Amino acid sequence: MNSPNKRKPATELVSELTTNRLSVYLRCLTQLESAGVETISSQALAEQFHLNAAQIRKDLAYFGEFGVRGVGYYVKDLKRNLRQILGLDRKLRVAVMGAGNLGLALADYPGFKREGFEIVSMFDVADAKIGDESRSGVPICDLRELKKVVRKERIDIAVIAVPAESAQHVLEQVVAAGIKAILNFSPGALDVPPGVKVKNVDLTVSLESLSFYLAQGIDDGH
Amino acid sequence: MNSPNKRKPATELVSELTTNRLSVYLRCLTQLESAGVETISSQALAEQFHLNAAQIRKDLAYFGEFGVRGVGYYVKDLKRNLRQILGLDRKLRVAVMGAGNLGLALADYPGFKREGFEIVSMFDVADAKIGDESRSGVPICDLRELKKVVRKERIDIAVIAVPAESAQHVLEQVVAAGIKAILNFSPGALDVPPGVKVKNVDLTVSLESLSFYLAQGIDDGH
Repeated sequence: MNSPNKRKPATELVSELTTNRLSVYLRCLTQLESAGVETISSQALAEQFHLNAAQIRKDLAYFGEFGVRGVGYYVKDLKRNLRQILGLDRKLRVAVMGAGNLGLALADYPGFKREGFEIVSMFDVADAKIGDESRSGVPICDLRELKKVVRKERIDIAVIAVPAESAQHVLEQVVAAGIKAILNFSPGALDVPPGVKVKNVDLTVSLESLSFYLAQGIDDGH
Repeated sequence: MNSPNKRKPATELVSELTTNRLSVYLRCLTQLESAGVETISSQALAEQFHLNAAQIRKDLAYFGEFGVRGVGYYVKDLKRNLRQILGLDRKLRVAVMGAGNLGLALADYPGFKREGFEIVSMFDVADAKIGDESRSGVPICDLRELKKVVRKERIDIAVIAVPAESAQHVLEQVVAAGIKAILNFSPGALDVPPGVKVKNVDLTVSLESLSFYLAQGIDDGH
């Protein structure tokens, strides 16, 4: 098996759909590992989790030769490699911009910590909120302290959870504070400077997929 | 162009990844329409929105013949057809289970209404919350009234935004009330009865995709 260090340094060719699928594979492997499964073929992985075997092989082959002829994939090894490819082999430190309902919900979202993301602080402009903290103890800081806190807390990622009309302004402050990776929950297009990666989360997409099943009559075969 | 009524009735063969892509195409077409674009080829659509042209053609061909030789797709027509395929040609009525931070954030999420989803009510068990409403005016009802409200308000979809330990119990009550389509924000696996579609939203996947870009050095080519 090659190490992922030999992978092609071609971030720009790896679409967001691919990285999303890598995350999905990682989740499947975590489930398999806790079920005590040691090896699995792409075919079995696809069948068990309703994925596409050819797509799995293609996605993984892009980063190295992880499969072993006659065996398939070693679950533990592939999981470790995927975590490394996804940059999850170190803790990532996250700030949440906006301490409204969404910001507070995200600050306490249990999935983040489990996967190695640490929500370090929230930022807001409302005096009534600054100095308070979320239920799980994430402090709400003054937005005017952003640059200082980002440097002191070594924050890697900002999550934008402010109303649409403030999103562009907050994005600019986040970028000025030196953050290069942003998860945006605010609807509407943002003007993103070069060298900064913004991932937009649109919760409506999930509802539309349910709408599809309702329209077709629900029967997804499992 | 065929009408989507002639499409194959094969829900079980259409993966969630496909319906997610249809949602993405719909968003692209909406942008093109507001920019005044009348026709577009799969190639141009792919280039403009960083998608895959062959995938677009394959996904759409599954539901009918929407492309016109030498023209490509008519933006308005394809948009209308996609809305119909996704079941978005009628308003869908949504209940949010749980009036915590996440439930309140979802009840007021501006994207839902824009795409034709109406958040009709929230449900909670806490006396202090029942009778109150979200900032945008969605009422918080008593969970014990679920069956009655679902029938009266003709609710199509439930969104589960309760803590993990209550999720299975709430799911069962939602199903008992006759709801067949559920969006679940609660982490962990749920036991889903046949004939019910649950879509799990895992917000961690989006953060992992950012982590990937940080790990590779951000340069996504645009």
